[in-house]
Amino acid sequence: MLDYKLLEALASVVEEGGFERAAQTLHITQSAVSQRIKLLESQTGQVLLVRSSPPRATEPGVRLLKHYRQVASLEADLEDALLPEGPGAYRSLTVGLNADSLVTWFPEAVQEFLLSRMILLDLRTDDQDVTHRLLQDGEVMGCITSRDRAVQGCRIHLLGSMRYRMLASPAYMDRWLPSGLEGLRDLEAPVLIFNRKDRLQDRFFNQVTGLSLNPPVHYIPSATSFLNFILLGLGCGMVPDLQSRSFLNSGSLVELVPDMPMDVPLFWHCWDIGSSLLKDFTDVLVQEAGKRLF
Amino acid sequence: MLDYKLLEALASVVEEGGFERAAQTLHITQSAVSQRIKLLESQTGQVLLVRSSPPRATEPGVRLLKHYRQVASLEADLEDALLPEGPGAYRSLTVGLNADSLVTWFPEAVQEFLLSRMILLDLRTDDQDVTHRLLQDGEVMGCITSRDRAVQGCRIHLLGSMRYRMLASPAYMDRWLPSGLEGLRDLEAPVLIFNRKDRLQDRFFNQVTGLSLNPPVHYIPSATSFLNFILLGLGCGMVPDLQSRSFLNSGSLVELVPDMPMDVPLFWHCWDIGSSLLKDFTDVLVQEAGKRLF
Repeated sequence: MLDYKLLEALASVVEEGGFERAAQTLHITQSAVSQRIKLLESQTGQVLLVRSSPPRATEPGVRLLKHYRQVASLEADLEDALLPEGPGAYRSLTVGLNADSLVTWFPEAVQEFLLSRMILLDLRTDDQDVTHRLLQDGEVMGCITSRDRAVQGCRIHLLGSMRYRMLASPAYMDRWLPSGLEGLRDLEAPVLIFNRKDRLQDRFFNQVTGLSLNPPVHYIPSATSFLNFILLGLGCGMVPDLQSRSFLNSGSLVELVPDMPMDVPLFWHCWDIGSSLLKDFTDVLVQEAGKRLF
Repeated sequence: MLDYKLLEALASVVEEGGFERAAQTLHITQSAVSQRIKLLESQTGQVLLVRSSPPRATEPGVRLLKHYRQVASLEADLEDALLPEGPGAYRSLTVGLNADSLVTWFPEAVQEFLLSRMILLDLRTDDQDVTHRLLQDGEVMGCITSRDRAVQGCRIHLLGSMRYRMLASPAYMDRWLPSGLEGLRDLEAPVLIFNRKDRLQDRFFNQVTGLSLNPPVHYIPSATSFLNFILLGLGCGMVPDLQSRSFLNSGSLVELVPDMPMDVPLFWHCWDIGSSLLKDFTDVLVQEAGKRLF
């Protein structure tokens, strides 16, 4: 049987990004952390940690950590069954998700569950390819992404769709598109894109004009700032209805092409390890997302 | 003299994250892009590009790209002097900045400059160590960070301070801290942290309690969602006044310790390459930040 104290030290160094912080979290000295990892390496006959800044797990290290997190999650469920819940009995869930979900429907959807079950969230927001890899490596227990291909060993649930529209301010329309979408063909009207992996704008223009346009682009990697840039007339961009509704109602934003939404389905992927905590979180997500998504 | 067409191909592959997108941007075929990079590699006698997905520059490649971007910026200024400005004459600035600036004062501060000078922004938001490295590598022309140490070859300007307060909702105070900060010592009241490099909360608690606390933590890597989690009573956290003012006024947020702000100075670092565009952008940033920061 593995010595899980040693694995805990390895996990803590990787999660906290250093030996000093890991020592603080585990309430032991830094040299004790270091000794535990060396012992684990000699027991497994593998180098498990690259001593870079921040330290990161080697491939065998990643495999061990994945196993450790699955065991930890099962153990948490066991505690659930064995122990009464106390106010100090927090447990933690590591979840990857897309930036638009994080600033719109997600916080309210999980509020009640977090408060009543004493759950702490460790959220990662990144490109969906990255969150998928985090899931594969066992660094997150689940992720919300538009990818519909399941990771081996994981379950997948449809949460619903986020509805996007191509929006701009009235000042933008007057300046750049006074006579309709023709202005887009001149490649003078600036367009906002979240980052270089964001293809939603391309898909919209392609659908509307039949052309693959190459407009001037601002890259704005923040969902909230993206919306602010549009409100300030600095560009047009695809915004979720969940974020834009009040601005559309008040007329401070308008659709480039009236009533031309694009739906992006979102899926919840999570490890299929029989954890009741993860199962309950999944149930809550599916139910609450269903009320908020399309 | 270097053949800058070849460097342009290298820069485009790295910026766009692939040969296909680079070919689209440059309006040439993918194999032409590939040939240009091979030719540049044979001319310099160095491997310049790791053919990973996405491709990335090797160390000699990074040095060449830094040079290329500096030349491109100088050339843009030259065009400024030689050519009349036309509506299609966009130029692009790559800027790194912290997430809190991006969602608060930054968009309005640059609005007028972007519109009147036809500037496109390519923004990167990341940890300040990362944005500093991007600056060093020449991948961004400037960055906004709280770091006051100048990068060699760069100028540094103080923009002002962002004022933060430790905030929570009234429901959070009732539940976790009914008799004041004592509840924090029990390590039961959850705290929000942006990510593991965010030390502002630690500094606050240390200053207030004199202790190095290790509270239960939610990691919420989005400035807007961070605020939402606080409003929903899920944790307390350090929020810029620029973001919280209306909530403090309406009473939906309160300070954990009355009138105990912490100021974080922000600096603008940029390459000192005599570019008039960069100089003008710097002037605008310093002036507009001065109106909005403390």
